[in-house]
Amino acid sequence: MTLKNDRFLRALLREPVDVTPVWMMRQAGRYLPEYRATREQAGDFMSLCQNPELACEVTLQPLRRYDFDAAILFSDILTIPDALGLGLYFVTGEGPQFRKVIATPADVEQLPEVSMASELSYVTDAVSLIRKELNGSVPLIGFSGSPWTLATYMIEGGGSKDFRRAKAFMYNHPEAMHLLLDRLASAVIDYLNAQIAAGAQAVQIFDTWGGILTPTAYEQFSLHYMSKIVSGLTKENEGRKIPVILFTKNGGQWLEVMAQSGCDALGLDWTTDIGNARERVGNKVALQGNMDPSILYAEPAAIRAEVDRILAGFGSGEGHVFNLGHGITPEVNPDHVKTFVDAVHEFSAQYHA
Amino acid sequence: MTLKNDRFLRALLREPVDVTPVWMMRQAGRYLPEYRATREQAGDFMSLCQNPELACEVTLQPLRRYDFDAAILFSDILTIPDALGLGLYFVTGEGPQFRKVIATPADVEQLPEVSMASELSYVTDAVSLIRKELNGSVPLIGFSGSPWTLATYMIEGGGSKDFRRAKAFMYNHPEAMHLLLDRLASAVIDYLNAQIAAGAQAVQIFDTWGGILTPTAYEQFSLHYMSKIVSGLTKENEGRKIPVILFTKNGGQWLEVMAQSGCDALGLDWTTDIGNARERVGNKVALQGNMDPSILYAEPAAIRAEVDRILAGFGSGEGHVFNLGHGITPEVNPDHVKTFVDAVHEFSAQYHA
Repeated sequence: MTLKNDRFLRALLREPVDVTPVWMMRQAGRYLPEYRATREQAGDFMSLCQNPELACEVTLQPLRRYDFDAAILFSDILTIPDALGLGLYFVTGEGPQFRKVIATPADVEQLPEVSMASELSYVTDAVSLIRKELNGSVPLIGFSGSPWTLATYMIEGGGSKDFRRAKAFMYNHPEAMHLLLDRLASAVIDYLNAQIAAGAQAVQIFDTWGGILTPTAYEQFSLHYMSKIVSGLTKENEGRKIPVILFTKNGGQWLEVMAQSGCDALGLDWTTDIGNARERVGNKVALQGNMDPSILYAEPAAIRAEVDRILAGFGSGEGHVFNLGHGITPEVNPDHVKTFVDAVHEFSAQYHA
Repeated sequence: MTLKNDRFLRALLREPVDVTPVWMMRQAGRYLPEYRATREQAGDFMSLCQNPELACEVTLQPLRRYDFDAAILFSDILTIPDALGLGLYFVTGEGPQFRKVIATPADVEQLPEVSMASELSYVTDAVSLIRKELNGSVPLIGFSGSPWTLATYMIEGGGSKDFRRAKAFMYNHPEAMHLLLDRLASAVIDYLNAQIAAGAQAVQIFDTWGGILTPTAYEQFSLHYMSKIVSGLTKENEGRKIPVILFTKNGGQWLEVMAQSGCDALGLDWTTDIGNARERVGNKVALQGNMDPSILYAEPAAIRAEVDRILAGFGSGEGHVFNLGHGITPEVNPDHVKTFVDAVHEFSAQYHA
């Protein structure tokens, strides 16, 4: 099937586009009343993730309201540790929690061998269904958490302020940490390849917590395993290249090494100047980002000015996918999202030949 | 009075030292049982800050245990908004809170004119007393929060996950935000000059939340006002230069512009490679940092290895003050701090001629 709008895939490969494509991390989310209604219907958050029909529904909801250039699978980054038997659940207002944690090197060795493709068939079923429903309108993004990010949750048992258990494990048991990360990298490869086989047309690796590391530890314990994943992914499907986006929150100091991972694009948070980032990575990768999600709390005029500033910062030429620098937050006014998306398309035409 | 140990002041001015000086953000803090006992005696946290004798006692406690090369005044970064009538208080486990907040531009205009030197005499009294008790053993550091950091707390009414009120205020009311920051910069100048007059031998500006901004907003709303403060500070006292340290947490991408602020040294968090930072700032400023405080949860061998790695990263020559990349956390084993401090002195001699 021919894609009616392939701007997003073209921009990731630094090919010419008419206007800069835009999507939004967490675009299927709590800021939308229709999302909250579907989630209510599903029960808890995991039940929503595990129901392909409802996951498909919430994936499509933002596309009915806004002129987004891509859809992203609705799921959670922690499905893999859940499939490994750690028991993921969500407590309202407290974020993800695991019933079991990795506390010792022995716990790593005792992790079961599980096929992600079969254990996480609820995800691939959702991917197939979403592709069918999208009917070629825009491409579908698949995703996974990075090995380091998954490992932090598996060791901490949930989110953390300072990740001290994960870091102490890394510094005191580096071999066991590498074994864990290596097993997670293999699981992520299986998982993303299953998503690609089911119809995901690009994939993003969310390294939410790589940015809490020292530069040395980041390269050894996070980036190394993301590079391994990139090497292991299916390169092409349905006659098109599958672009890979790597997003390390707070990774702005390390773009040069990230660009050598083999990925096609780097996600940027808002603390990085996108023009400077472009100079640093040259023609090696495309860039995705990087508006501060908090600007969506400001008035429309301020939102438009910020979109304008970021587009001018990237400048003329190809290789920019507009996005927020992190996920949209639940309290944003949905009208402000329309202002944002429309401004990207309106202001960006001048930068494309 | 001649200082018996002036390594810290010399390193900040990139003058020769025998070994790399070391101190630790939040070195007078909850990881020490004697601190917890004194705080218990004082009642709540603000009563401890406001009692010069007890503030002096907790300032000196870590120096009795460890071979630190500097003392830092025990106080809080939020004394200025408290003096402006916002009513600072602390709820255990929830961090600082204000009874009144800045919600509108009119609130900024209605802030009272207050002399920090007289309103915050409990701080300058503590400085005088600590200097007397230190008896020339090591220098004393004074400090303040940065205008942007103070403004975020004044608008949010406390800490925040995404600082959306502060950011929306900045984007929707830039003139009122600049007025607020300008008034805070003047207050910080008064406050730090009073600390210097009372005996502070170096000062640090804590820009805890500058790193949540875009690069453009950082320069306009945070760095600009810190540069203004640096220009307004007393340059010399007791025949010695008063070095100024500027620490923006998460500011590693902006070191070049920070180094142009007129400060003598930049504080680095652990996400920056200190060798790379040194190349970027050249001979313009000294560097302070930058071990991840979480490494203090690891075994002594891992702590020593990390100290060694950071010292080697900075390399030979002058202009390094060793520190953590952020404050020490309450659950650290006090024995690990000794390992850390002694390792800095032991391993660093080789890098000084």
